[in-house]
Amino acid sequence: MKDRLVCPHCGGVVERYRNPFPTVDIIIEVKGGIVLIRRKNPPYGWAIPGGFVDYGETLEEAAIREAKEETNLEVKLISQLGAYSKPDRDPRQHSISFVFVARSKGTPEPSGDALDAGVFDATSLPETMAFDHREILRDYFEGVVSSRKLIID
Amino acid sequence: MKDRLVCPHCGGVVERYRNPFPTVDIIIEVKGGIVLIRRKNPPYGWAIPGGFVDYGETLEEAAIREAKEETNLEVKLISQLGAYSKPDRDPRQHSISFVFVARSKGTPEPSGDALDAGVFDATSLPETMAFDHREILRDYFEGVVSSRKLIID
Repeated sequence: MKDRLVCPHCGGVVERYRNPFPTVDIIIEVKGGIVLIRRKNPPYGWAIPGGFVDYGETLEEAAIREAKEETNLEVKLISQLGAYSKPDRDPRQHSISFVFVARSKGTPEPSGDALDAGVFDATSLPETMAFDHREILRDYFEGVVSSRKLIID
Repeated sequence: MKDRLVCPHCGGVVERYRNPFPTVDIIIEVKGGIVLIRRKNPPYGWAIPGGFVDYGETLEEAAIREAKEETNLEVKLISQLGAYSKPDRDPRQHSISFVFVARSKGTPEPSGDALDAGVFDATSLPETMAFDHREILRDYFEGVVSSRKLIID
C-alpha cells in the first residue's frame, strides 16, 4: 500500500511505500502488580506504557526508553511476550506492538504521554483500556497463572 | 529520525518521520529439517524465507504469504520465536524481523525472491547466510536442543 504525502513546496502528491509502524509496550512488574498509565492523548484510557520505535534503535532500547519516558522507572527487561499486529488495534494507524515483560524496583511517576500511573493486578484492571491492551494483559496473566501452576502442581 | 523524499513534481524535499521496517521470517519445519532459500537479490546468500509486512496485514498473514511466495509451501504457524532488531542486521535499511516457527508437509520449490530452496539441519547450514539469520537459527536450534533434552532426560 502506498502512502500519499503532500509536497509542502508545490502541493503535489508524493507516493511512498507504506509499512505498519513498529511500537513497543512494556509490562513492568513492580511490588504489588504491574504498571499502567492513563493516556494524555487519544486513544484515551489506561494503557501499558509504550510508544513508537525510532529508526536506528533496537526494540530493547525503545522499550527501556519508553518505560523511562512514561513512568520514570528504570527497568530491566526479562522476556519478550510476543507481537500483536491486528490492523485495527490502534485507531490512528496500523501499528505492530512488540511486548516486553520487565521489572523495576522504583515507584512509577507519570510523565511524557502519561497523565497518571498506577499499579494493578489481574483482578483490579481499569475499566477503560486503550488499544488491544486488555487482550495483551489477558495473555500475560494467563501465562503467569500457567507457569505458577507448573510450580504448584 | 526523518526520511527525506524528493518531490517528483518540483524536486523539493519532503520530510517524513522514519520508522524501522517490519519484516517476517519463517522457520519452516519439514521432513529432514528446515527450509532455507538462496536469495536472488542483495543481500545475497542463503536465508530463512521472509519479507516485508504490508500495511493492513497481520504478522501472521505476512508470514503465511511470504512462505508461499518464496517456497510454494502452505505452512501452519506453530509459534513466535522472537524479534530481531539490530539496526545493522539488514544492510539496506533498519528492518525488524519477527520470526515464526511453522510446519509444512510439502516439498519446497523456489519462487519470487528465491533462486533456490533446500532443507537443512543444525549440522548442515550453508556457509554464506544473509542478514542475522545464522544467529536466529542458532537461537532456534538451541531452543530445540534444550526442549529435546527435557524429554530425553
